[in-house]
Amino acid sequence: MMKRSLLAVALVSASTVLAQPKDYPVQAVNFTAVKLTDNFWLPRMKINHNVTIPASFARCESTGRVKNFEMAAAHSGKFCTTFPFDDTDIYKTIEGASFSLSLFPDKKLETYIDSLIDKVGKAQEPDGYLYTARTIDPQKPHNWAGPERWVKERELSHELYNSGHLYEAAYAHYYATGKKNLLNIALKNADLVCSVFGEGKLHVAPGHEIVEMGLVKLYRITGKQQYLQTARFFIEERGRYKGYDAKSKDPWRNGAYWQDQQPVADQREAVGHAVRAAYLYSAVADVAALTGDEKLLLAVDSIWQNVVAKKIYVQGGLGAIPSGERFGDNYELPNATAYNETCAAIAGVYWNYRMFLLHGDSKYMDVLEKMLYNGLISGIGLDGKSFFYANAMQIKNHFSHQAMEPERSGWFDCSCCPTNLTRLIPSIPGYVYAQKGDAVYVNLFVSGNATMNVHGKPVSIVQQNNYPWDGALTFTVSPQKTDAFSLLVRIPGWARNEAIPSNLYTFSDNPATKVSISINGQPVEYSVDKGYAVIKRTWKKGDVLKVDLPMDVRRVVASENVKDDQGKVALQRGPLIYCAEWADNNGRAANILIPPDAVFQARFQPDLLNGVEVLQSEVPVITVDEKAQTVSTNRKLVTAIPYYAWANRGKGEMMVWFPEKVKDVEIIGEQSKQEPGKK
Amino acid sequence: MMKRSLLAVALVSASTVLAQPKDYPVQAVNFTAVKLTDNFWLPRMKINHNVTIPASFARCESTGRVKNFEMAAAHSGKFCTTFPFDDTDIYKTIEGASFSLSLFPDKKLETYIDSLIDKVGKAQEPDGYLYTARTIDPQKPHNWAGPERWVKERELSHELYNSGHLYEAAYAHYYATGKKNLLNIALKNADLVCSVFGEGKLHVAPGHEIVEMGLVKLYRITGKQQYLQTARFFIEERGRYKGYDAKSKDPWRNGAYWQDQQPVADQREAVGHAVRAAYLYSAVADVAALTGDEKLLLAVDSIWQNVVAKKIYVQGGLGAIPSGERFGDNYELPNATAYNETCAAIAGVYWNYRMFLLHGDSKYMDVLEKMLYNGLISGIGLDGKSFFYANAMQIKNHFSHQAMEPERSGWFDCSCCPTNLTRLIPSIPGYVYAQKGDAVYVNLFVSGNATMNVHGKPVSIVQQNNYPWDGALTFTVSPQKTDAFSLLVRIPGWARNEAIPSNLYTFSDNPATKVSISINGQPVEYSVDKGYAVIKRTWKKGDVLKVDLPMDVRRVVASENVKDDQGKVALQRGPLIYCAEWADNNGRAANILIPPDAVFQARFQPDLLNGVEVLQSEVPVITVDEKAQTVSTNRKLVTAIPYYAWANRGKGEMMVWFPEKVKDVEIIGEQSKQEPGKK
Repeated sequence: MMKRSLLAVALVSASTVLAQPKDYPVQAVNFTAVKLTDNFWLPRMKINHNVTIPASFARCESTGRVKNFEMAAAHSGKFCTTFPFDDTDIYKTIEGASFSLSLFPDKKLETYIDSLIDKVGKAQEPDGYLYTARTIDPQKPHNWAGPERWVKERELSHELYNSGHLYEAAYAHYYATGKKNLLNIALKNADLVCSVFGEGKLHVAPGHEIVEMGLVKLYRITGKQQYLQTARFFIEERGRYKGYDAKSKDPWRNGAYWQDQQPVADQREAVGHAVRAAYLYSAVADVAALTGDEKLLLAVDSIWQNVVAKKIYVQGGLGAIPSGERFGDNYELPNATAYNETCAAIAGVYWNYRMFLLHGDSKYMDVLEKMLYNGLISGIGLDGKSFFYANAMQIKNHFSHQAMEPERSGWFDCSCCPTNLTRLIPSIPGYVYAQKGDAVYVNLFVSGNATMNVHGKPVSIVQQNNYPWDGALTFTVSPQKTDAFSLLVRIPGWARNEAIPSNLYTFSDNPATKVSISINGQPVEYSVDKGYAVIKRTWKKGDVLKVDLPMDVRRVVASENVKDDQGKVALQRGPLIYCAEWADNNGRAANILIPPDAVFQARFQPDLLNGVEVLQSEVPVITVDEKAQTVSTNRKLVTAIPYYAWANRGKGEMMVWFPEKVKDVEIIGEQSKQEPGKK
Repeated sequence: MMKRSLLAVALVSASTVLAQPKDYPVQAVNFTAVKLTDNFWLPRMKINHNVTIPASFARCESTGRVKNFEMAAAHSGKFCTTFPFDDTDIYKTIEGASFSLSLFPDKKLETYIDSLIDKVGKAQEPDGYLYTARTIDPQKPHNWAGPERWVKERELSHELYNSGHLYEAAYAHYYATGKKNLLNIALKNADLVCSVFGEGKLHVAPGHEIVEMGLVKLYRITGKQQYLQTARFFIEERGRYKGYDAKSKDPWRNGAYWQDQQPVADQREAVGHAVRAAYLYSAVADVAALTGDEKLLLAVDSIWQNVVAKKIYVQGGLGAIPSGERFGDNYELPNATAYNETCAAIAGVYWNYRMFLLHGDSKYMDVLEKMLYNGLISGIGLDGKSFFYANAMQIKNHFSHQAMEPERSGWFDCSCCPTNLTRLIPSIPGYVYAQKGDAVYVNLFVSGNATMNVHGKPVSIVQQNNYPWDGALTFTVSPQKTDAFSLLVRIPGWARNEAIPSNLYTFSDNPATKVSISINGQPVEYSVDKGYAVIKRTWKKGDVLKVDLPMDVRRVVASENVKDDQGKVALQRGPLIYCAEWADNNGRAANILIPPDAVFQARFQPDLLNGVEVLQSEVPVITVDEKAQTVSTNRKLVTAIPYYAWANRGKGEMMVWFPEKVKDVEIIGEQSKQEPGKK
């Protein structure tokens, strides 16, 4: 499927155009160069291909999303879905299907995508404008769209958001298929956008960021400076609107909801809608890398530090506050009302990967891995067709906030999360390796084969492991010819007694021993640089590198600044954060104590939840006998499962943070007949 | 002390002026006609006279409130307290001291009051304007005062609020002492106010109501129509300001905070700041009575029904929401964050008494009694010098909202509640009786002697009882000459199985038996009309009427619409709502269950809290053994005390509503080090 290397082309194009070519110091490795064979991710990609993508396209058809494009082409009818950004579900699923085609060739799917692209093209106006919510009937546009093009872009219209997703899709489709049919539509639209917006032209801070990332991708394909300049322009437009009330604490009134409260270069804290924010920060990293803008670099570094030290949940979730789907204040990480939109975790992966490419530091991959294995894939059920929009930190029988979802749904009116998952899952091979000159980074541990170029010659790396269940990792390194180069193997933070690259979460138990590494059976000494074990040697074909990561069950505690987690412990094993769910614990989970001396055993259960390692210990459980009206403490065997696997067996209690000790109890009696969570 | 009857004078004045004289159908009985001898209220009045009033005047001196008047007289210096309405603390304490002088003649106090009145008079500007926050230095007025007179009256200045309290004080002082020194100051100010505001003149809805009530009182003294007209004008000004955003849910933005969201005649629900609201509703009752305005009457009747059915706490507290000290939504009566400002209960007494005078129905006195014996006097400590601004419904060790007060304070920067108590407590004799023609209402049960006029001849009634501890009430009725008239003895709602005159709270236990009444030892049959036992007979000197109210311990439950009270029970005996406090229950209160079958015994404890009847029962209590880390249920003797008496023995847990059953418990572990109630 893959006709050429993504970054090779991009770098060549860029270097031919830029006076002083700049880019990320580390280079991503083409996702098509990595073929996975593992039992964790590959099955998910298959389900994505066989279930999620077809279901997503089917919903785009059945809900009228496709019809909107047909009506726009005909300039007749009435926009028939809910949101003007519903167009993006088609773009996002095309993007996901494009990635997926490179994994699983599928002529029928490719033909179907072409038929959709044809409809998209026909819906595009002659000057490149593409937005069905207006084009169908420009006299009566969607009421979010504004009477004229772009006039409501800042608040509501999402015209540039639609464009951004179009560009992202076109980029993936072009590289996956070599076809230019979607790319040409995207370029035509981008040329319009660049002609409309800019210095001396129309000014706006896009209402929902992503057009910035998308423009950078088009710049990578074409080398056209104006795309990069317009992306930078949009970033620099933020913080310039005068209509906000800077003194207001309401993020809609002070602009923080849109990261529009001050110039990006001055921003130091993650604020507002978490998906918008992480898409912006991804673009800021892109533009900082490609332009060398040190103010933007300082801003995005500071914001990242703020998130990792003060605004991320232990399972990698971003955006604590349901109202506005947004970041809370520093350390405002409540469990009862955690929002954690699936899309925000996906956006967090995009952002953290760019931060890694900027700095070559494994701490960004640590955060990325935390998101990927926990709060991101929790967003999709094991069936591949049920989804969480919000990813709860706890579900208690007697407390339910209306924004908390105790069960996955088949689809949402606002279907951003399902379609975002279709595009993230099949792109994972691209995150496994990276390169910087002749140094090869091994970032993720997934069985499979990869081929990279070192000193212009192919080097194959075969990973064999049972990650994330086992810590024994085997890498067979085979340069075409014996050659000296460095392999930088990421030693995850959790294997170096660092729960997260900050003081927000720490391990409270005994430190694990140093990770042992051997080559061809001989232990090797190694140094750790920026979180990577640096293995510099002359490699010959078939060299076997073994890394043994300690898979102890670890106790995670939160900073004393996180009010809701005080006196509580979370459980982690390898990259996985665990939870206790009702289904394994006599119908309850909120009644479990995990004392400091509790010892957990890990046990692989092949028939449970498609095969998971469970953690078990006998701990005190508080039991209410409703008939006898007594409350008592009993020791019971408690089972914890990986957080990502919760809510696949019906609705009930789930806890991530467990009290270590009980100081008091609050009596819960009869509840009001009113709907829970509503007043 | 008392030179003439309040209402007699008022009615004569009114009837000589009004073309169609209108007034309340029921007439209040002059408070000086009632001499209390009881052990419940008289000691409180003595403490008020001996401790609270002197302390209040001392604080007015020491905080600079008196100095503000001196500086205003000298037109030099700088306003030296916090709020422009600090002037009212002097007016309110003068009012309280005036009432108190009629109970406890005190030349020294009377002389001191005169000296204060002299300072007040000197601070008045030549045209009658009286507002130290501007007069001290009109070039640099308090920043709430506005650059010119009245320009900030709606939002902040409280100029008319100061005037209203001045009028209230002048009214009490005039009737208690016969002196006109304060009255003349008040009339001069009122004449200015009436000349400035009105149709064709300045328009404003006063920012904090009370000037309306005050003007009606001056009208009662003088018969001057303009005072009544201006009171009505101010009421009718509400709902006319165009600067609000009617669509906003924020009570400051939609005007509801000030009861300014719509014309009063259209209002049907109690909204906004509870003290402002109840002062307004009191004035609406006054103006409706004095003008016969049926639209205002319908409004105030509807609002009262709304409060009693949906917005009052079981102990009579008004204003659920700390932010804005305001009424919540219908049925929004949370226990953890109940605000219940002491001043709102006081304002509620003023309002409910006026509603009784309008309708002659005991249900208004039921609500008044509930406030008086529970959520109002809880505002002052047994020492007479410690005060609650907010009256909590529960205090839990592990939960504390910043607005909740677990202990009384000596004074507040905003000292409205302490000084409001000084004026309410000594006025209570005025609420005991009322008359309508030759019918005499007995509204409150307090030992003492009263003399009223029936058919132009004196009738003395002597009450002997041990209320609220005992239900045996003895009334010795002595007309000067044998005469036929009706005695209307209030049979409290709680003695007729009505916890409140609505479905908001009901008794869940077996109904009490009918109240038995005898005259001179012979049982009498009686009918109940509007909640009164109607005893119509020819009375002769020394007739002894006995009424036996059932003093069972009653279980109170809340409407299913009150979310926070579901599955919970409160305890009531007589008019008193009970609570459990830490001091009687092994240091806890939030761990008590009161099952449906619990039987409480009442026992008088003379040495406890100045003598209270406690309620005791052996019930399940949930105990946490922190050392053993166990939770268990044990039966323990639990003691409940009258709600009004809580927080006189230090800080700790207190509960009014108790779970009847436990369905679950919430584990409380270590708490954050952060300040409780703050994020």
